[in-house]
Amino acid sequence: MNDAAGKEIERLIDVMAKLPGLGPRSARRAVLQMVKKRDLMLIPLARAAAEVAEKAMVCIECGNIDTAQICSVCRDPRRDASSLCVVEDVADLWAMERTSAFKGRYHVLSGVLSALDGIGPDDLKIPRLVRRAEVPEIEEVVLALGATVDGQTTAHYIAGQLSGASVEVTSLAQGVPVGGELDYLDDGTISAALNARRSL
Amino acid sequence: MNDAAGKEIERLIDVMAKLPGLGPRSARRAVLQMVKKRDLMLIPLARAAAEVAEKAMVCIECGNIDTAQICSVCRDPRRDASSLCVVEDVADLWAMERTSAFKGRYHVLSGVLSALDGIGPDDLKIPRLVRRAEVPEIEEVVLALGATVDGQTTAHYIAGQLSGASVEVTSLAQGVPVGGELDYLDDGTISAALNARRSL
Repeated sequence: MNDAAGKEIERLIDVMAKLPGLGPRSARRAVLQMVKKRDLMLIPLARAAAEVAEKAMVCIECGNIDTAQICSVCRDPRRDASSLCVVEDVADLWAMERTSAFKGRYHVLSGVLSALDGIGPDDLKIPRLVRRAEVPEIEEVVLALGATVDGQTTAHYIAGQLSGASVEVTSLAQGVPVGGELDYLDDGTISAALNARRSL
Repeated sequence: MNDAAGKEIERLIDVMAKLPGLGPRSARRAVLQMVKKRDLMLIPLARAAAEVAEKAMVCIECGNIDTAQICSVCRDPRRDASSLCVVEDVADLWAMERTSAFKGRYHVLSGVLSALDGIGPDDLKIPRLVRRAEVPEIEEVVLALGATVDGQTTAHYIAGQLSGASVEVTSLAQGVPVGGELDYLDDGTISAALNARRSL
């Protein structure tokens, strides 16, 4: 509570403090900054948030978030229709898109299998993925899941589910990150990179 | 740039990324979270921001930010009218208010003297502070400025400016923070705490 500011300001701080990466202190700093730069930050934020609230929706094809029922990736006729990339979350889809390295379409799982969090196959969009992979034009399913225990468990589970479909299931390579120095890498990464070594 | 989301979503991410404490990555995470919790976060944020943009203003008395021309602290008749607390910024005023330890009113400088940033006495609200301190009912001016070089320079400058007025000028005590362990404190703090030692 903060009696020194009006309840409208208080309410804005409360909402901001719930955002990931912001706590009460940084929310207060952010709101003060916004009030000081009213025309440059506060009004644009209010407008942009209202507009997104009105227009944002989940793509019924892939699970991406966009401002249309079918997202811009699924709509784009230049995308390779034979390749499907499975990601955990929309944030991962956006990260993949920033690299421009993948030319196909996506499938957002909205999570990974997790015994700890009680997330089973039915909680994720795996049945829908299996149906999408059965479309004849799909040739490859790329699993772009995190190199975590849950991510890899999910990858194996999906590979099993897709073994009946006539698609090649691949996974992102594990190894030394670009710019990475061996001395600073964990043992698991070094082992994985060694096991996946390639002839030059 | 992020072609995978609509331009409205992109615009919201851009505005959020400019907030202190958030960068592009955390802005994207925050926006995704908000879109997923549309009714709980995005719409309340849009409303609260619009309301604050419309109503927030700087108190003409003390410089606090509130939703009235005279802020709730300055308006409150129960506040001690004999005591004025000088703070650098509105965030510091709010921090003081959260402790409920100070019963008087405030004066927000909107910065501290800084040779490096080229901020001189005329850039701060020091002349206005001198005028406010000349009101007969004011008995004490508490300088609650940061224990930084700039903060302390500003405190000394203000003390000099107020030497003509018949007010007592005090400053926050420096010493060991509550819960602080000596071993983890810097030398300056230990010296300050030793010099300001009190008999029990």
